[in-house]
Amino acid sequence: MKLESLKDLYVAELQDVYDAETQITKALPKMAKAASTPELQAAFHEHLRQTEQQISRLEQIFSGHGLPARGKTCKGMQGLIEEGQEMMKEKADPSVMDAALISAAQKVEHYEIASYGTLRTFANLLGLQQDVQLLQTTLDEEGNTDKKLTMLAERLVNPDAANEVGGRR
Amino acid sequence: MKLESLKDLYVAELQDVYDAETQITKALPKMAKAASTPELQAAFHEHLRQTEQQISRLEQIFSGHGLPARGKTCKGMQGLIEEGQEMMKEKADPSVMDAALISAAQKVEHYEIASYGTLRTFANLLGLQQDVQLLQTTLDEEGNTDKKLTMLAERLVNPDAANEVGGRR
Repeated sequence: MKLESLKDLYVAELQDVYDAETQITKALPKMAKAASTPELQAAFHEHLRQTEQQISRLEQIFSGHGLPARGKTCKGMQGLIEEGQEMMKEKADPSVMDAALISAAQKVEHYEIASYGTLRTFANLLGLQQDVQLLQTTLDEEGNTDKKLTMLAERLVNPDAANEVGGRR
Repeated sequence: MKLESLKDLYVAELQDVYDAETQITKALPKMAKAASTPELQAAFHEHLRQTEQQISRLEQIFSGHGLPARGKTCKGMQGLIEEGQEMMKEKADPSVMDAALISAAQKVEHYEIASYGTLRTFANLLGLQQDVQLLQTTLDEEGNTDKKLTMLAERLVNPDAANEVGGRR
């Protein structure tokens, strides 16, 4: 791969996030299964549907540039997901596991927020206005998901887990 | 490791981010060396000094809980740094490389924003007000670094790289 222009880098970043999103579609059902709170399970299922739409938007962008929709192994996301999977194997109180799942999901969200933010800035500089709109829609969705997870953590999960402090059952 | 309480999870997350910060102190000098724009080099050097202070704050927190300052291999950060290092090996136009370095650095920043945000929320729920203050200070620094990198990308790096579009030298 040669990165001779911003456009080359833009395409490389698109391929990176396309692979990242594909990895996320495989991880989310496992996270939903590991969650105890029905609202958290529902949030993971909803985010899976949203991720599938985000993948479609990326495919639209590739297609607009006459390129095949192709991923390039995203080692960043691999590391994040591996970390989350190791955590899911731990012996944990159910409400503590929910708190841990939210923490892992927010790390994934922030990877995406960084990626789509960069892509939107690049698309803007390259004068690709249709791409900018598609990327901004996804960026807004990711930001909302992150906020929703914070609210779930504050409202549902953590207070229960905090009650366990000092108490061994 | 057992995660029986939110406090257990809090300590595990502290160990994760302590290792992540240590990894970052090793990566930043390489990123500064790979950067062409003096302002980007300076930003990486400044962030290295800031990271060292953030590590000191984590050591203060561990010490306050009577715990040794110990990291637990952070696979998420390993993946992000590996991805950045692979990118630095690419043959790239200098201004495109600067854009790519900023993109990699923002992914690292967002990992930290997610981690310190989670830790601050947990510390709050656990009633650890001194920890909350230390974590909030670092969280604010990370947010400012992220914004500074976006400004650098928009002001310095990308317009140069965009000029290369279509031009093979």
